[in-house]
Amino acid sequence: MNGGKHFGKGSAFPTFPEDDKQLRLISARFCPYGHRVHLVLDSKNVPYHTLYCNLTDKPEWLLEKSPLGKVPALELPNEDGCPVIMDSLAICEYLDEKYPQNPLLPRDPLKKLQEKNLAEKLGVAAMPAAFKLFVMGPIKSPGCIEEMEEAIKVFEDELENRKTPYFGGDKPGWVDYMIWPWFERLAMVKYVYGESHDLDYAKLKNLAKWIELMKEDAAVKLMYLDGETHAKFVKTKQAGNPDYDMLVKQ
Amino acid sequence: MNGGKHFGKGSAFPTFPEDDKQLRLISARFCPYGHRVHLVLDSKNVPYHTLYCNLTDKPEWLLEKSPLGKVPALELPNEDGCPVIMDSLAICEYLDEKYPQNPLLPRDPLKKLQEKNLAEKLGVAAMPAAFKLFVMGPIKSPGCIEEMEEAIKVFEDELENRKTPYFGGDKPGWVDYMIWPWFERLAMVKYVYGESHDLDYAKLKNLAKWIELMKEDAAVKLMYLDGETHAKFVKTKQAGNPDYDMLVKQ
Repeated sequence: MNGGKHFGKGSAFPTFPEDDKQLRLISARFCPYGHRVHLVLDSKNVPYHTLYCNLTDKPEWLLEKSPLGKVPALELPNEDGCPVIMDSLAICEYLDEKYPQNPLLPRDPLKKLQEKNLAEKLGVAAMPAAFKLFVMGPIKSPGCIEEMEEAIKVFEDELENRKTPYFGGDKPGWVDYMIWPWFERLAMVKYVYGESHDLDYAKLKNLAKWIELMKEDAAVKLMYLDGETHAKFVKTKQAGNPDYDMLVKQ
Repeated sequence: MNGGKHFGKGSAFPTFPEDDKQLRLISARFCPYGHRVHLVLDSKNVPYHTLYCNLTDKPEWLLEKSPLGKVPALELPNEDGCPVIMDSLAICEYLDEKYPQNPLLPRDPLKKLQEKNLAEKLGVAAMPAAFKLFVMGPIKSPGCIEEMEEAIKVFEDELENRKTPYFGGDKPGWVDYMIWPWFERLAMVKYVYGESHDLDYAKLKNLAKWIELMKEDAAVKLMYLDGETHAKFVKTKQAGNPDYDMLVKQ
């Protein structure tokens, strides 16, 4: 919607015909959490509208839809009262249950819990490391690249143990899509800080192979941006003026 | 197990016969998070062993079973590799899926998400308020009783809207059991700080009625302790020497 441009302060919420029951994903183009929801919707071929929001100059309606002003949020005109649900993991689990085609979580209660726990390990270690890496950077925060390598080792080891190309087995599953947005963005490190600051993928052989495979996945391809493009956005963010519409203007 | 006594430092993990596949709940008698798991197991009539741990003098095996040393943890000898799962909400959801009798969460994906969100609202507001109330107290932390009243108002309003005796409808469901441990403990306020410091239940009419109904529930009854007893334990905790085995010695 809005030609891919981010809705900003003062912009009205778009009008939808009453019989338009397509889901409405409220997100931002470069938001890794919103990226998760795109991946799940796309992997299940669920049609949806995308409403991107400028997060430094938020449209007033964002707070009405998502009381904390956070994205992603998913508006559900196909459900009674057109509710809005929040939190990327909760949204994705809802979608996986509501649209059972191409299931992402195992049905077995224990396996399901273990897959959810594994995906959440990204939050425990890699997200603080990502903050240091992309907000502070290796100059101000020495060792942050090594910290990231350490943080993602749990996924390297898990692939080694599972002996499958994807965490989900022979195709991407819950863990693959839930962690992918951060791995796609790791490719920007050398573009932000120079080749000498890149991660040592020789120590992460299984993940390196997995990354190449994921890039060929149909759902991943639909939203894929290369490291150089992610770097360009992050640099505008680091400069205090995030260029949300960078891809639209080009 | 252990005659209801809490396992402490130096105590060995009990030996179970190989064919004993009963679940093993690792918890502490006065822990509200562990209380949730008791309620779910009991409401579904799932047999289990209880292993209480002294949390100020933890048995060495607790860290092996639960790497952060936290309770509750649930050991599953009926599953491959006898895994241990953690986090009260995750454990309870696993149990609700594994043991479908007397289901607690709705099957509809949206209603399920909404019930989980409602139960989690306790964590957002009431748990910080409970900390002020029972660790600092109304003398050191003036206004903490009013803060608690405000924090639980979301549940009062929800009962008003639902017009059902329980959050789960005509019997206790997910929300009822997930929030009950904190409401059972609210009855101790007047015993810890004196009558003049109690919550004003006249402002919480639906909750007051719900509390009386919950006390009659079979699963609630099995673990129920009155406010005076909870107060007695909290006072030993406030004094820096929690008397975990208080009920065993009596």
